Amino acid sequence: MLQIPETNQKRIVIVGGGFAGISLAKSLAHSNYQVVMIDKNNYHQFQPLFYQVATAGIEPSAILFPLRKLFQRQGNAYLRITEVTGIDPTAKMVHTRSGDCHYDYLVVAAGAQTSYFGLKNIEAAAFPMKSVTEALTLRNSILNHLENALLEKDKAVQQQLLNLVIVGGGPTGTEVAGALAEMKKHIFPKEYRELDTSRIRIVLIEAAPRLLGGMSPKSSSKSLRYLHKLGVEVYLDTQVNDYTNHEVVLSNGERIPTRTLIWAAGIKGASMPGIPAEAILPNGRIRVDAFHRMAGSDTIFVVGDHSAMITDATPKGHPQVAQVAIQQARNLARNFIRMQKHQNLRPFRYRNPGSLATVGRHLAVADLPGITFFGFFAWYVWMFVHLMAILGVKNRLFVFLNWLWSYITFDQSLRLIIHRDDGHKLNGELT
Amino acid sequence: MLQIPETNQKRIVIVGGGFAGISLAKSLAHSNYQVVMIDKNNYHQFQPLFYQVATAGIEPSAILFPLRKLFQRQGNAYLRITEVTGIDPTAKMVHTRSGDCHYDYLVVAAGAQTSYFGLKNIEAAAFPMKSVTEALTLRNSILNHLENALLEKDKAVQQQLLNLVIVGGGPTGTEVAGALAEMKKHIFPKEYRELDTSRIRIVLIEAAPRLLGGMSPKSSSKSLRYLHKLGVEVYLDTQVNDYTNHEVVLSNGERIPTRTLIWAAGIKGASMPGIPAEAILPNGRIRVDAFHRMAGSDTIFVVGDHSAMITDATPKGHPQVAQVAIQQARNLARNFIRMQKHQNLRPFRYRNPGSLATVGRHLAVADLPGITFFGFFAWYVWMFVHLMAILGVKNRLFVFLNWLWSYITFDQSLRLIIHRDDGHKLNGELT
Repeated sequence: MLQIPETNQKRIVIVGGGFAGISLAKSLAHSNYQVVMIDKNNYHQFQPLFYQVATAGIEPSAILFPLRKLFQRQGNAYLRITEVTGIDPTAKMVHTRSGDCHYDYLVVAAGAQTSYFGLKNIEAAAFPMKSVTEALTLRNSILNHLENALLEKDKAVQQQLLNLVIVGGGPTGTEVAGALAEMKKHIFPKEYRELDTSRIRIVLIEAAPRLLGGMSPKSSSKSLRYLHKLGVEVYLDTQVNDYTNHEVVLSNGERIPTRTLIWAAGIKGASMPGIPAEAILPNGRIRVDAFHRMAGSDTIFVVGDHSAMITDATPKGHPQVAQVAIQQARNLARNFIRMQKHQNLRPFRYRNPGSLATVGRHLAVADLPGITFFGFFAWYVWMFVHLMAILGVKNRLFVFLNWLWSYITFDQSLRLIIHRDDGHKLNGELT
Repeated sequence: MLQIPETNQKRIVIVGGGFAGISLAKSLAHSNYQVVMIDKNNYHQFQPLFYQVATAGIEPSAILFPLRKLFQRQGNAYLRITEVTGIDPTAKMVHTRSGDCHYDYLVVAAGAQTSYFGLKNIEAAAFPMKSVTEALTLRNSILNHLENALLEKDKAVQQQLLNLVIVGGGPTGTEVAGALAEMKKHIFPKEYRELDTSRIRIVLIEAAPRLLGGMSPKSSSKSLRYLHKLGVEVYLDTQVNDYTNHEVVLSNGERIPTRTLIWAAGIKGASMPGIPAEAILPNGRIRVDAFHRMAGSDTIFVVGDHSAMITDATPKGHPQVAQVAIQQARNLARNFIRMQKHQNLRPFRYRNPGSLATVGRHLAVADLPGITFFGFFAWYVWMFVHLMAILGVKNRLFVFLNWLWSYITFDQSLRLIIHRDDGHKLNGELT
């Protein structure tokens, strides 16, 4: 068993310290529940800025927040850093690598993971973007490839090292492509003088007929124009079928040589053994009702990207974005408090605050309720909204200063290839 | 062969981008030499602050500086990121993992590496502190052990996880011990409320009769008093003989259970196949004359920690500190320029600017020429000197803000256990 003090409070176990998990736990701070949060990392990750970590713009620590710090003053919160391996709804148990944990109520909020749609060769070679570690791995690889291009005699291999292919034209793919194009323009020519940096190709591939499918058609066409302006080659209506022999194979038959295949094309709900198969949709999301309850259970709840609230108004569930997760978590927290007061539960209603995406310096698109706008002003709005959403005053300050610095100097200064060699010393300690 | 453009300049190959290597390369910026720098990392590391990375005080990126950025405007500098595997003095060749490189003059400045004095069990288990990666590994491990202590049922294992043993009472060991003691006092009780954090033991072991052997006896006794004040257990005149069964075995027969054995006890010159055995001292340093020339060669030079300039005035060579490395590199650069003008070479003379060490908040010791002082003022001097020595205005600013933040909030905010799982995607690319 996990060592957690028994109190006379009902225990809510939350799996996952993402936006949904921490919003829920914080909203229960003054409730009469014991809150146990389990996450395999000791930090919360701010996903919207992973792309800036991958492109050397900001430091991982600036968008991570230690979970323990978050709960320093919350007496009813207990944090355990370990991996959840499954759940047992009948016994009301969560299984972890460090022992089992009983719950009165379970909230599953483990988010989404990368989906490769069964493409094995791509899964083996591509760089996903769903964690800060993955973003760092990508940063290391991009920089390594440029270094190796300098050492390489074979022109064909050199070109594989210089081509950067991004799959998926959602916000992440679009933002990565824009940021790489800015680096190609402002930084690489100064630092790789001996390379012809015009040979660096940045290619963005999207299966749908437009970029940023979740946004307005106007925003899509504007972001496409921005990417073209930055020199990104964009393929629309194009799927990636395979990756062999250091070449991406497209649905139009074309092959693009590359050693950097960035995969921002698909996600699926995290796997969670013990969840009944009938509650899991084909995309891995867990089906819940308007009160966040998993179908057929009144003790298991699912919020955030992991859930799909299928109602008449939302036949496919809500979009998998931070705002949905936060609002769902807050509604669920209020319902938990209502439960103890024997009040009626309130169904979830999403208030969409709009969406934003940035492509490069001064280039962004914004769809706010009732208004769509672009360019300079959208870029400032994008920065302000993201800055305010970052957890912690210090992180906010440091991200702001980083942005200011890059803005003034045209420099992303974190071009560090930090080798990782700590394998053996931590073996057996991390599980 | 390494792909390096042939120019009509004589080629100086510098192995290592530490203090010595970069000072030399920068000092040759306006000379009529082609300068080739080879390092396995694409960044310069600021060693004096590794201990703050290990104790979650500052972010690795703040004390790393991308080498390419350093040479952006230096037209005669060529950087290659690869590992040197040896040299061939007869053929005037440097061997690297990416091919060979011819030199007219070779400067070896690969620094020092951790020495375990042949203690195999310690080498296998201990955490060294000679690179930023090692410092990060230690940070991850310390935090992991606290998390695991919360999950552990066995009291004896729990105590192993809570005991932190530091071997070596030089600046690094003393500074790590002080920083850990500050965390034990200000942070751990708030974040590990369920643990009795008074059980955390911080033990510092030194073989000599005093700490900070390179400093004045007054500074030694003062730093010992500071550590006692912070609750660190200090063993003087004590050697570490072995590490078995999660216990450190001391020369006095005592055994201290721990899973965190921090090794700051010894260094030796980096190994460099091809250097004649007769030029290598038992501590691995390469013997040079007053002009930095390796014995028996007029094309191979050694500077910094890697070298030992054995003269009547310095029978054991100079201390292995940053100031010596920088001054040696500058003298050597001037000599290279004199060579082209057929002027006489100048022997090296070390001007000792003094030494500093910090133990904790407001606690530091300073031996400056003609004056020794302690406490508050020494602490400010320590901060100022280190801040000014950091490469890059941005790094300096960010380290300063980090310190200011920690000072005001009593918080080291980088308590992040960043798992590293990027192995397979980079395989074969890093060599």
